[in-house]
Amino acid sequence: MMENNSECINALLPVGDALDVISGKWKLLILISISSGNHRFTDIERSIPKISAKVLSKELKELEAHTLIKRTVYDQSPVLIKYTITPYTETLYPIIEELRLWGLNHRKVITGK
Amino acid sequence: MMENNSECINALLPVGDALDVISGKWKLLILISISSGNHRFTDIERSIPKISAKVLSKELKELEAHTLIKRTVYDQSPVLIKYTITPYTETLYPIIEELRLWGLNHRKVITGK
Repeated sequence: MMENNSECINALLPVGDALDVISGKWKLLILISISSGNHRFTDIERSIPKISAKVLSKELKELEAHTLIKRTVYDQSPVLIKYTITPYTETLYPIIEELRLWGLNHRKVITGK
Repeated sequence: MMENNSECINALLPVGDALDVISGKWKLLILISISSGNHRFTDIERSIPKISAKVLSKELKELEAHTLIKRTVYDQSPVLIKYTITPYTETLYPIIEELRLWGLNHRKVITGK
């Protein structure tokens, strides 16, 4: 893949930048959930196994700071808060798709099925 | 990207599987470093900014357990230990490339340059 150290450095920096934004177990899963139609906190939480409300709340704030989701407060009673994807979220879809394909294959490699 | 919840679940599981293996800040950077010709612990450590020896040691063990790297001990004096990529590592290259492209773009978005 990379012949020498300068190519290595050229890849390390941008991959590191990308990982700074989306790394960790939850961010991409949250984006998948929201882009599938889960817009309220409880819906998102319910759709992702093992995520806690505390972690989800922190991750949503970070995703919002990176303009990867939009948080809209509807001034009604009770107040409704909705999370939606942004055009910028869609730039992540190629990564998500490659991860999905790799994950499918990895499960076959691990389970032999 | 995903119209409904079943598609969401279909993506969540494999993406979750992939992230279980490669998530975190360091694993992909380590693989990039090794595939660029850094095979000894100190060379890998030196090539990745801010990684500690303790973290690198833990991550190398996990990568080896997932057959994403191979550890070879050369019985000489002093003993030489080399880390190399495996054929399975190469299945990650599409993900690394998409992350690289996204990271390059993200830096432009953030810096405006």
